[in-house]
Amino acid sequence: MCARADFDRLSIVLVATRNPLNIGAAARAMSNFGFSRLRVVNPYQVAWREARSAVGGAPVLHKAQEFNSVAKAITDCSLVVGTSALTNRDPQQPVRALPEGARLIRKHLASGSVALLFGSEKRGLSNDDLSYCRWVLHIPTVENHASINLGQAVAVSLYELANLKMTSRAAARVPRASGKELERMSELLQAMLRAAGYAKAERPGAEQKLRRLIRRLDWTSADAQTFLGMLRAIGRKRGN
Amino acid sequence: MCARADFDRLSIVLVATRNPLNIGAAARAMSNFGFSRLRVVNPYQVAWREARSAVGGAPVLHKAQEFNSVAKAITDCSLVVGTSALTNRDPQQPVRALPEGARLIRKHLASGSVALLFGSEKRGLSNDDLSYCRWVLHIPTVENHASINLGQAVAVSLYELANLKMTSRAAARVPRASGKELERMSELLQAMLRAAGYAKAERPGAEQKLRRLIRRLDWTSADAQTFLGMLRAIGRKRGN
Repeated sequence: MCARADFDRLSIVLVATRNPLNIGAAARAMSNFGFSRLRVVNPYQVAWREARSAVGGAPVLHKAQEFNSVAKAITDCSLVVGTSALTNRDPQQPVRALPEGARLIRKHLASGSVALLFGSEKRGLSNDDLSYCRWVLHIPTVENHASINLGQAVAVSLYELANLKMTSRAAARVPRASGKELERMSELLQAMLRAAGYAKAERPGAEQKLRRLIRRLDWTSADAQTFLGMLRAIGRKRGN
Repeated sequence: MCARADFDRLSIVLVATRNPLNIGAAARAMSNFGFSRLRVVNPYQVAWREARSAVGGAPVLHKAQEFNSVAKAITDCSLVVGTSALTNRDPQQPVRALPEGARLIRKHLASGSVALLFGSEKRGLSNDDLSYCRWVLHIPTVENHASINLGQAVAVSLYELANLKMTSRAAARVPRASGKELERMSELLQAMLRAAGYAKAERPGAEQKLRRLIRRLDWTSADAQTFLGMLRAIGRKRGN
């Protein structure tokens, strides 16, 4: 995982985007995954006005910069990478699949700035746009379904690029049942089955079978306690 | 990477979705990454009608099944996993981050069927919905920006789940320059610089410096040939 300061050296450059929802979706994905530098090149003006005035328009949109050429949008970037579904053209540049490409971009961000270009919904990046790129990033898909929605392509790319771990709160583990709790469940069930006159409980191997059944399951400690409480309540009722 | 037959055992279950664009976006991402079983539970009816009638509505949408409860939508699934941004609730189930969770789901798909649940745009999955889930899948984000757009969350999850490699066509390598081409460029440039009377070309180490400059760059074979052609043209003009 990169440091957050590195993330500020990545510019997402949307070239000739037509749909305001896609500009908004790109900005939202940037917020989700920790990126803030959005640049737009020749957006369809209606789309750009709508996207910027959208309620809930992220701070990313308000800080976004507008340019009238790819050349101007990337002057301060030491690595320029284009994205392509490879449906309309065979780029002259080397093509890298997302996981490998994301690793290379993270590495570059440690000491340089990167522009990641996304083309228009209909045509993608032109050969002229691609001529500014050192290499091309491609999201692997099923053959004949390579064209990913622009907002989704930005989200998938930034998810892989950010390579975030769960925050400590999200990762707070749900404690699993202890060996003692698991054993107590087996014992209690076994005792109840015997008391109920369940014939199979007397067979050889019955105890191991029951223990395996309980231990194969991924009990949380809370669920084990709840279940033990239920067993005890049923046992009391039956007078065990 | 799973076999494609395994992909048919994964059902994407959209619960109480309100926005037709999100249903369409989920279906499109499913097509991109090779999944076909879409189920909707109590969708907002206007959204469902609009999504199904959308021009370009993928075959996924036409095959989609509608249910009036989560319980009915998952009866044939041996593993049920819910997704959560963990903003509204702390689930009682274990939480797994996407990369690890995707691995577990792929493993399960080898011998069983899986339902992956996505809640509504506003509230996510309810505690009642989550009670059907063995564990919860979470897409790691920046803290305080955990709420990912539904269509983007589906795309990111399926990208990681599918774990596709580039198709052979996309992976067709752009051939890199050979050692011979690289050496020829260094030699030609060095000769031209000497002929031009460029003083630094005579200094000790000049040849190595020029060779390093050329060899550090990632030339494609086509670009090396183009550049050699340019050098020769300039040399001829100058009478070298």
